[in-house]
Amino acid sequence: MRLVIKSGGPQALPEWREHFAEFAPGLQVCGQHEPLDDPSEVGYALVWEPDPGWLASLSGLKLIISSGAGVDHILADPRRPEHVPIARLVMQETADEMSEFVLAAALAITKEFKRYTNDQAICRWDTPEVPRMMRDMRVGVMGLGALGAATATLLARTGFPTAGWSRSVAGLPGVESYAGAQQLPEFLARTDILVCLLPGTEVTRGILCAETFAQLPRGAALINVGRGSHMVEGDVIDALDSGQLSQAVLDVFDTEPLPAGSPLWRHPGVLITPHCAATPTRRERARYVAELIRRCEAGEPLPNLYDPAKGY
Amino acid sequence: MRLVIKSGGPQALPEWREHFAEFAPGLQVCGQHEPLDDPSEVGYALVWEPDPGWLASLSGLKLIISSGAGVDHILADPRRPEHVPIARLVMQETADEMSEFVLAAALAITKEFKRYTNDQAICRWDTPEVPRMMRDMRVGVMGLGALGAATATLLARTGFPTAGWSRSVAGLPGVESYAGAQQLPEFLARTDILVCLLPGTEVTRGILCAETFAQLPRGAALINVGRGSHMVEGDVIDALDSGQLSQAVLDVFDTEPLPAGSPLWRHPGVLITPHCAATPTRRERARYVAELIRRCEAGEPLPNLYDPAKGY
Repeated sequence: MRLVIKSGGPQALPEWREHFAEFAPGLQVCGQHEPLDDPSEVGYALVWEPDPGWLASLSGLKLIISSGAGVDHILADPRRPEHVPIARLVMQETADEMSEFVLAAALAITKEFKRYTNDQAICRWDTPEVPRMMRDMRVGVMGLGALGAATATLLARTGFPTAGWSRSVAGLPGVESYAGAQQLPEFLARTDILVCLLPGTEVTRGILCAETFAQLPRGAALINVGRGSHMVEGDVIDALDSGQLSQAVLDVFDTEPLPAGSPLWRHPGVLITPHCAATPTRRERARYVAELIRRCEAGEPLPNLYDPAKGY
Repeated sequence: MRLVIKSGGPQALPEWREHFAEFAPGLQVCGQHEPLDDPSEVGYALVWEPDPGWLASLSGLKLIISSGAGVDHILADPRRPEHVPIARLVMQETADEMSEFVLAAALAITKEFKRYTNDQAICRWDTPEVPRMMRDMRVGVMGLGALGAATATLLARTGFPTAGWSRSVAGLPGVESYAGAQQLPEFLARTDILVCLLPGTEVTRGILCAETFAQLPRGAALINVGRGSHMVEGDVIDALDSGQLSQAVLDVFDTEPLPAGSPLWRHPGVLITPHCAATPTRRERARYVAELIRRCEAGEPLPNLYDPAKGY
């Protein structure tokens, strides 16, 4: 059994090897950069942004494993071997990390910490009459997969009036449910803090655009922890400049690191975080991948496989 | 029945009058700045930082009511009429506001939002290996009065390992309890985020000092929402500079607004907020004070009276 890894670069390989030695002692682990005697011996590939055509060169591949929750970075390869199933890495750890990050961001928005940071830079002391409370800020989570569902549940449990928007009606405790394109306007109209946790597909590309922002209450806030491709950057800037959006916490971008030329870096209403909301450790990922490979070898059903009909 | 108000300045008086007209229609309300025909007719005074000697001039005073949770600003008057009881404004609204603010601050510290804001100013993209989680950050709340107890409870419920330190052992659900000077070192040694919600007394003055910080784990963080007088400003700066403290969220200061010359404004590890953590609305305060006056007139026991033996 052989696993080839393209995730974290050559410098991450010793760490991957160490963790796989613990969780799958029989597995042979090599890096994408290492020469292979016989590429057809590779049954498994753990990948992030695989180089186009590379996966197609592995003729014995049984399973492609995404090193994250999304598969868009694999689908971007036009020569991807379509007969090989793709497993998404959906881990409790990632869901916990994402939930906490969004809770922290939503509270920072509610309590206007970015405004105070801006004031601090000019020694400005400006106390509001009354503090804004969680109960005043209706959060709306777009996308109720494993990460979105965990996030909406934590926000609701902590005290934010929370709704979710997804393909079909979700039954999450304490979370109002909106479903489908038809209910999107209603969902946006009741949302003071919009959280994007949609999968990156052709359908969701550019969904964070002027038309969407215009349907939010004036002065709403945005938290994007989905994909950079969800966001039309110029529309985000315009909405912030016009006051339609008051604040944004942005963790993902089309190009990462975010180029120094992006006006997002300099906008006073924006907090940029460097794609740090949720990053499971290599150890936890190795544990999960080892179990996936074990199931695959045993002919057991695999969880969280990519569904071409849904696009994620 | 007459109430005189020194809270919020002359410009706040019309609003106070409006709210007291709703909650105590028979009550005559005047401002400290308004001339009184007969000062001895004033039975009640609602005050914030009363001018020294002024309360002593009101010979018919039955009750002094602090416009906040603390009474230190009244005790500072050396000519205060000591036979008149002082009621502290302890309101659920304030406890809710304080709890949410400290939760927001503790999460912002955990997720290092100030660091990302600093990075953003220089377009720096620096992603940590793994996100820090609530479970990694042990919070310690000094002071378990109404505000401290509500805060510790919310922090524990949300996911922070939380302890409280107070005069006597507290039985808060999910909160570890430390009591008295003897257990302070043990409490500090297990605290990654120290929250100060002590009353402002002679005993607690300057408690946030080098000696206290030295007992915290290296790189701990500080949230001061108690009083400015709890903090030895130079020691806070020194601890931040040495790395003994990594971050601080400071909402209260000896002099407010914080003078432009204070180095706290410019420290990269500090978030300054302008005494905005908890400010109950005048309407809620008027409702509470109206009920206090009703009880006092009816000879019923009064809640949250200042206890000279405790100093708060």
